[in-house]
Amino acid sequence: MRKYVAELIGTMVLVLMGCGSAVFAGTVQPFDAVGTLGVAFAFGLSVVAMAYTIGKISGCHINPAITLGMLVANKISGKDAGMYILFQIIGAIIGSGILYVLAKDSGSTTTLTGANGYKDLVPAFVAETVFTFIFLLVVFGSTSKGAPNKFAGLAIGLTLVLIHIVCIPITGTSVNPARSIGPAIFQGGEALSQLWLFIVAPFLGAIIAAFTWKAIDTEEAV
Amino acid sequence: MRKYVAELIGTMVLVLMGCGSAVFAGTVQPFDAVGTLGVAFAFGLSVVAMAYTIGKISGCHINPAITLGMLVANKISGKDAGMYILFQIIGAIIGSGILYVLAKDSGSTTTLTGANGYKDLVPAFVAETVFTFIFLLVVFGSTSKGAPNKFAGLAIGLTLVLIHIVCIPITGTSVNPARSIGPAIFQGGEALSQLWLFIVAPFLGAIIAAFTWKAIDTEEAV
Amino acid sequence: MRKYVAELIGTMVLVLMGCGSAVFAGTVQPFDAVGTLGVAFAFGLSVVAMAYTIGKISGCHINPAITLGMLVANKISGKDAGMYILFQIIGAIIGSGILYVLAKDSGSTTTLTGANGYKDLVPAFVAETVFTFIFLLVVFGSTSKGAPNKFAGLAIGLTLVLIHIVCIPITGTSVNPARSIGPAIFQGGEALSQLWLFIVAPFLGAIIAAFTWKAIDTEEAV
Amino acid sequence: MRKYVAELIGTMVLVLMGCGSAVFAGTVQPFDAVGTLGVAFAFGLSVVAMAYTIGKISGCHINPAITLGMLVANKISGKDAGMYILFQIIGAIIGSGILYVLAKDSGSTTTLTGANGYKDLVPAFVAETVFTFIFLLVVFGSTSKGAPNKFAGLAIGLTLVLIHIVCIPITGTSVNPARSIGPAIFQGGEALSQLWLFIVAPFLGAIIAAFTWKAIDTEEAV
Repeated sequence: MRKYVAELIGTMVLVLMGCGSAVFAGTVQPFDAVGTLGVAFAFGLSVVAMAYTIGKISGCHINPAITLGMLVANKISGKDAGMYILFQIIGAIIGSGILYVLAKDSGSTTTLTGANGYKDLVPAFVAETVFTFIFLLVVFGSTSKGAPNKFAGLAIGLTLVLIHIVCIPITGTSVNPARSIGPAIFQGGEALSQLWLFIVAPFLGAIIAAFTWKAIDTEEAV
Repeated sequence: MRKYVAELIGTMVLVLMGCGSAVFAGTVQPFDAVGTLGVAFAFGLSVVAMAYTIGKISGCHINPAITLGMLVANKISGKDAGMYILFQIIGAIIGSGILYVLAKDSGSTTTLTGANGYKDLVPAFVAETVFTFIFLLVVFGSTSKGAPNKFAGLAIGLTLVLIHIVCIPITGTSVNPARSIGPAIFQGGEALSQLWLFIVAPFLGAIIAAFTWKAIDTEEAV
Repeated sequence: MRKYVAELIGTMVLVLMGCGSAVFAGTVQPFDAVGTLGVAFAFGLSVVAMAYTIGKISGCHINPAITLGMLVANKISGKDAGMYILFQIIGAIIGSGILYVLAKDSGSTTTLTGANGYKDLVPAFVAETVFTFIFLLVVFGSTSKGAPNKFAGLAIGLTLVLIHIVCIPITGTSVNPARSIGPAIFQGGEALSQLWLFIVAPFLGAIIAAFTWKAIDTEEAV
Repeated sequence: MRKYVAELIGTMVLVLMGCGSAVFAGTVQPFDAVGTLGVAFAFGLSVVAMAYTIGKISGCHINPAITLGMLVANKISGKDAGMYILFQIIGAIIGSGILYVLAKDSGSTTTLTGANGYKDLVPAFVAETVFTFIFLLVVFGSTSKGAPNKFAGLAIGLTLVLIHIVCIPITGTSVNPARSIGPAIFQGGEALSQLWLFIVAPFLGAIIAAFTWKAIDTEEAV
């Protein structure tokens, strides 16, 4: 149970802080707003923060795509995977709920929820699939036997910064179905009708990554 | 005594450098000013710097909310906790004093002290409580048994970057009563009349975090 | 074979994400675009990501200049060096191909490929040679006996951030022939006619670095 | 001899890359220039890069203030200290010379050398003294017995990022006499007449730090 609660808290933090940075970047402040680079750091540093906090408890997936990838790679049981994803989604919704309280009267001109969305379907689907594939490769590689595993939290978090730098202009960046579901519930409209893409594409990327990693991991060869 | 002095110096550095970045971001300079992202890095990197410097001496709390959390979690004695908080506040005031010398003729258009403040009470109180809760969870988790503790300084410092990215537009970001007390003394006015929030909310967040961490830490289960 | 595929994937990621950041920095987005600093972080964090992922498989060169430097320093066989460079170039072309799909209708006002280029030959040649020399020194030093090798991925990646901060205004920054070849094929024109510089100068810098490191490495002295 | 050459190369890299970022931030480029935050990262990441490269050879001082501090703390011989400082200054001049070749026709609107300077004497002197004091405390602490020394390169480099964020608007940030001497020779004029401050204040801050660290280091107490 502790590990499920840890996943809930971790995903709540990721959604609250990542999406929160996107909301408050659009408010009046004494300095230049953080911009796309600041939002990218907010999402990535949320993962760094949680990895070194709940990593030892649950492995810090805080992302259903990672949990699915781990299931495909036989590194988590089916029951645990289901519970992880359930608690991740609950955490994301709580995170979005707290953000709603903070944001609703903020006067933000960018977004009030941080929901994902896209204009053109094909680039959005390609981007979410390919970038989740890359993200999961780093997850598998940096946590694998023979890699310097204590650096995995930093490597994975900084990879999420990287992905946001490139992908915010395309979809706002999901690579994480829970991170999309939470804000979409509060945003409604197009965020809900486009939500399928931010579930299907990350899951597809995660499955491809699981098989790719299995094919190239030298430890598996032993 | 050494550890008390270490806490004084560390808090002085945090306030001088963090608040200093906010002051000098508002002055004329040859390049674009650092903006909100730069101020966020200044506060967070101050913690990284001090963690790897005085961590071995005092544990590098440099924040009364952390000290209170550690007291609630029975990781520091009552006497030490009191002395820590006293020296942290003295350090913060010295840091603000040095900054006053540097800043008073700087012509900064943002702030001359880096004092915290808010427009709307409810979002400010929620934000300071929730973000201190998150901050303290990372402090407890990354320094707990079974976590890669040498990374704690990085993880905690980068979490403070993250919190500032989101929270600067709301309150300027405290999550640290000492960091608010120092500048408020030099700022006066509203900074003093609002100071209670930056003491009560961080302390509340810290207490919730101490109990939450106790409930989910797997080492406690053993 | 696994290590060659790893080099292909790693170089693909570097080119896709690094050049992708340059493309999408020029598109309409809700926040201020990432700017030169964001593009610099994209290239550098790609290396951090891949170093902790495929480092144990192939050493994560993902750069023909590094492979040539390692060959000169007798740290890789001639056959492996040839295969590494071949697969790096294939990976770079695939990365540029994926980016082409994402970018062609993006309306980017900066670049559609992230190809390298220069206005003045002499500063461009000096910059690419000197900065590759510095980059390779860090590669040799941080991975050498007696250095804290687990930090090498971070040190090398952050050095690439550093080099891009300085060199983007000069050439867009190559220090990596594969990274230049991929986009040049899709860009054509001047990117192809100037391509020789981004092969010759990095190779020259790498060779000088190999001999310099050999001369100053204290482990070699033993 | 190897360690002296290492100091020369390291200081050359610091001056070339740090000052280079300041020069090229003022040139026309496809993206928003890196600004003060980017220049801050350039100086700090130069230290990260060199620390993990030449740290094992010379300790990576690349700063006469650090060498003087180490001399006061009895951690280096007088002869070595003299040679270190000599080679650091030579390296800084070479770095500035290479930058001169790259920069002279760049059309930079910010600076052509990255030389330090100030408008008001008192804040400049206080800032350079206090910030060098803080910098040296981190150097002493993070490399001391009982601290996680492998993180010292990261902690010290990120501290230099921090110091630049605050101090660029005041003096451009020296905290390193060699870093000021190199550009001043190519800049001439006021950069030379103000150079004394960037030698005296950092040396003063370093000496104060050496005694302060000795007073609070718990290992010394044993």
